[in-house]
Amino acid sequence: MTSSPGSREIIGILGGMGPAATADFFAKLVAMTPGHSDQGHLKTVIWSDPTIPDRTEALLGTGLDPTPWLVKGGILLRDAGATVIAIPCNTAHAFVPQISEQVELPIVHMIGEVARHLAALHPSVRTAGLLATTGTVRAGLYPQWLERVGIKLVLPDSDSQEADVMVAIRAVKAGKRGPLVTDPLARAAQRLVDHGAQVIIAGCTEIPLGLDAGRVPVLLVDPCVVLAKALVRRAQTARKPEHPQ
Amino acid sequence: MTSSPGSREIIGILGGMGPAATADFFAKLVAMTPGHSDQGHLKTVIWSDPTIPDRTEALLGTGLDPTPWLVKGGILLRDAGATVIAIPCNTAHAFVPQISEQVELPIVHMIGEVARHLAALHPSVRTAGLLATTGTVRAGLYPQWLERVGIKLVLPDSDSQEADVMVAIRAVKAGKRGPLVTDPLARAAQRLVDHGAQVIIAGCTEIPLGLDAGRVPVLLVDPCVVLAKALVRRAQTARKPEHPQ
Repeated sequence: MTSSPGSREIIGILGGMGPAATADFFAKLVAMTPGHSDQGHLKTVIWSDPTIPDRTEALLGTGLDPTPWLVKGGILLRDAGATVIAIPCNTAHAFVPQISEQVELPIVHMIGEVARHLAALHPSVRTAGLLATTGTVRAGLYPQWLERVGIKLVLPDSDSQEADVMVAIRAVKAGKRGPLVTDPLARAAQRLVDHGAQVIIAGCTEIPLGLDAGRVPVLLVDPCVVLAKALVRRAQTARKPEHPQ
Repeated sequence: MTSSPGSREIIGILGGMGPAATADFFAKLVAMTPGHSDQGHLKTVIWSDPTIPDRTEALLGTGLDPTPWLVKGGILLRDAGATVIAIPCNTAHAFVPQISEQVELPIVHMIGEVARHLAALHPSVRTAGLLATTGTVRAGLYPQWLERVGIKLVLPDSDSQEADVMVAIRAVKAGKRGPLVTDPLARAAQRLVDHGAQVIIAGCTEIPLGLDAGRVPVLLVDPCVVLAKALVRRAQTARKPEHPQ
């Protein structure tokens, strides 16, 4: 059997954190791919394991370390033929060094891509607001990358982090949508804008499922869209050697 | 590593036909699963291979036989741990006997599930309208199953099949949405209703992406939703032995 031209890259999606966010990410990846028929799209293998222990709980020291699950999933993707891994969960990026070491495949780093995206396309941004899990915040994932491109973060205060952001994220994970989710997220975003945020980063993959860009008075950056675009660019580069101009 | 209770079933999705329909099916599967947190959901492995040769062309004798691609995908899912296979592509069901024989995993048959669903929940339906690819129509997949439950099919005439249904399906596969897709599908559905259809079956996984139930004057059955519900029921049954009451 031969496969279509340009199909050397096989995207591996390490997902299930949560499953709805994985489905949303896959839909975005398909939408970002400029295919005119099925055959123009990218081969993709997805492992959606919703039993991966909660990443935030692990980072706060109150839950199991998810690393063995993440590594097992990465190896499953590699064995299925994946040539690159994407992880549509911000908090899980705290475990990327361990996954990378044990799975031995390139991982396109969602948070690194957000930093590159802001620096390249929105160079006037100096202050970004972050809506993310408490795990992502505590692990310092965003400052690590954003400081390199000269962007400072503003975060919700601890009350808003729990009562607005985490309550909304848990509600999305439980399948809820609508004002119960949207209102606290919009309120938290507005507070960050009041504290100088020029953009809001929807830094948990559940947030774009619950918050429409129209409810935020500044640009709302969806890291899943940024990651999907980075994967498509990478696959387009990967196919070039097969099709010399 | 132990996994969560009730996670014995691993859903394998043989997809990519097209990829947007696979993403839509996965989102429906997640939405139909009654989980209150990530950990309540089903483990799922998805192989989305958009390079699988066009199923309709194969059935019309104008394209490659997709069986080797489908079997390879099924084996990939089995090797990744899948315990059951779902195929969110109606036309690909013409190749289920060959896949089943070579992959040796149970396949939950989407079209069989639609027949069961109509017989159980809509017993007054005697005539169903089918919007599907020309491949699905020619392969006689729906009459095979619906006749067993006493339901007769009405189909678009050959002009409407090509100019309305196939044009809209190809447009969805090319990433198009909106009236260019909705209008021909709604027109074809209305004609089937005029010819006695009491329900319309959206018998190609691209159709629910392009046609809203509100545009059809009778019940619009989405086989992806029916299949997702069947998988969830199956998984709930499969987990029972682990949790005796």
